[in-house]
Amino acid sequence: MRPVIWCGDHAELIDQTALPTKEDWLTCRTPDEMADAIFTMKVRGAPAIGISAAYGIALAALRCSDRSLTGLQRELSRAHQIIQSTRPTAVNLFWALQEMRKIWENAESADGLTQQLIDRACAIAREDEEMCRAMGRHGAELVPPQAKILTHCNAGALATGDYGTALGVIRAAHEQGKLDMVWVDETRPFLQGARLTAWELMQDRIPCRLICDNMAGFLMKQGRIDLAVTGADRITANGHVANKIGTYTVATLCKVHNIPFYVAAPYSTIDPKLHDGNDIVIEERHPDELTTLAGKRIAPEGVSVYNPAFDVTPPELITAIITERGVFRPPYAQTLAQAFN
Amino acid sequence: MRPVIWCGDHAELIDQTALPTKEDWLTCRTPDEMADAIFTMKVRGAPAIGISAAYGIALAALRCSDRSLTGLQRELSRAHQIIQSTRPTAVNLFWALQEMRKIWENAESADGLTQQLIDRACAIAREDEEMCRAMGRHGAELVPPQAKILTHCNAGALATGDYGTALGVIRAAHEQGKLDMVWVDETRPFLQGARLTAWELMQDRIPCRLICDNMAGFLMKQGRIDLAVTGADRITANGHVANKIGTYTVATLCKVHNIPFYVAAPYSTIDPKLHDGNDIVIEERHPDELTTLAGKRIAPEGVSVYNPAFDVTPPELITAIITERGVFRPPYAQTLAQAFN
Repeated sequence: MRPVIWCGDHAELIDQTALPTKEDWLTCRTPDEMADAIFTMKVRGAPAIGISAAYGIALAALRCSDRSLTGLQRELSRAHQIIQSTRPTAVNLFWALQEMRKIWENAESADGLTQQLIDRACAIAREDEEMCRAMGRHGAELVPPQAKILTHCNAGALATGDYGTALGVIRAAHEQGKLDMVWVDETRPFLQGARLTAWELMQDRIPCRLICDNMAGFLMKQGRIDLAVTGADRITANGHVANKIGTYTVATLCKVHNIPFYVAAPYSTIDPKLHDGNDIVIEERHPDELTTLAGKRIAPEGVSVYNPAFDVTPPELITAIITERGVFRPPYAQTLAQAFN
Repeated sequence: MRPVIWCGDHAELIDQTALPTKEDWLTCRTPDEMADAIFTMKVRGAPAIGISAAYGIALAALRCSDRSLTGLQRELSRAHQIIQSTRPTAVNLFWALQEMRKIWENAESADGLTQQLIDRACAIAREDEEMCRAMGRHGAELVPPQAKILTHCNAGALATGDYGTALGVIRAAHEQGKLDMVWVDETRPFLQGARLTAWELMQDRIPCRLICDNMAGFLMKQGRIDLAVTGADRITANGHVANKIGTYTVATLCKVHNIPFYVAAPYSTIDPKLHDGNDIVIEERHPDELTTLAGKRIAPEGVSVYNPAFDVTPPELITAIITERGVFRPPYAQTLAQAFN
């Protein structure tokens, strides 16, 4: 399930704002169309955004009417600016644009430049997918037979080049015949679990069942969850994990019930300069995410709301961190540092 | 905030299905209209249903055209049948109807019977409110100054004669100047917290803030919750508490963070014949409660869903049980039994 596909002279992407009720594929023929798709969150998930940005640069080269080197470079710089301004905090977006920029800045002639850009964009997508498959392989070794796995939010193929991070582990376990069932937290307020994870698993015929976030604890008490795995937005040098709001509660419930709690994320998610979980600023999002749904009001007019987008899970609640380079165990301050050196 | 009011010759009730967007008061002039209001859940909450049922019987006596004793008794029996069939599991409904039945079955003449029935119905409402106020008084003693209190679902005035059970404790603490703030779990899937608790607290100008159920754990970690209090649907002789799904997770998170977790409920909620929490059958409700909202689909067509209506919290997670007879502490098997004897 690739969320963004390169089709020779244009890109197609699945409109994630229309899921799960409609499966609309959008055609992007220009860098401006791609920028708009990122800005309006039709494509989301940091790796998927990075890939889309790279394709956007390739489209700029393809569509440019001035085929001289300076003409191409001028248009590529313009596209870079437009795409860069779409999402302010997506690290992969800036990284992918920088990868592309290196190519056109170092180019000595216009000959073959467009093809080089297309090739690099496709490579970024392929490398991301390979990283996810590596995470899946490493993570699946931690999954027991007949596993019932809980996941939170969408760390799936839809957020990556393909295969997913947390869902990559789940897919690999499924391919190895070790998966009995995935419990899918609906993930309020934005419902990424209900809208995206459930849809993605059903597409691949992976057995899954949707629950409200407040039901997972009771399932654990009943012995109906064997392990939990989520993605990560950011990981500190000593293993504090910032991820979708609710992750801390899942990890705490796992600890109390002696259930392993795993985090699956690319190694680049680890920030060696960050040490304390308290250093991670918690973004508060708009109250409307809680008080309205599908345009309909579900809470009183004027109600005060607290809507943090993510929380921070401390290392003592995390059984292991799964990356494409392997599985890291506590004490993370040491094991992660060794991997950096 | 009384959800059902007796107005001399008819009853008025607030339509809880229209809250929080509209505050519609319904007029019930006949027992059939009252039965319909209960059946369609315009009034909900076990005590409020019991009170409504009693008023329904009073309305039957008032509207009966045959004023002979047998004529009245015939009509009262018919009304009893109709109202009884509205909600199969509401214990208070059967109890209130039985209280009313005793009066007309023991009546020796038609003289004054209607007034006796009206008086008893009003007394049932008043007694329920007094019970809630007593719970509030006992519970408020457990609340420290400047308290930040978490609650789940709606155990409020809307569910009772007035004042509420868990919200009774919160109201009493507020009246004593001890309340800083109420964190309101939205309570998926049916959103009783967002729709009813937030509305009810705002009506009384009690400071409150709405959160998703998955946010409470992170607030506890940040030291922003001092105690939690919920209602109860059923309590076993040894202190297992069946309540709205999500209660077990709240109680577990409280334990981990050393935060007191209290249950407030009328003494009649304790079932001396029930001993094991596992004996409580968990009702599973319709998948639509998770997959659609306000008629709009929010999960994939055909997705498998687990939707338990409540969970069971074991006694070791409950700091105290607050009733109108006082506060009970562990070991509940002993303290509750002593109160029964």
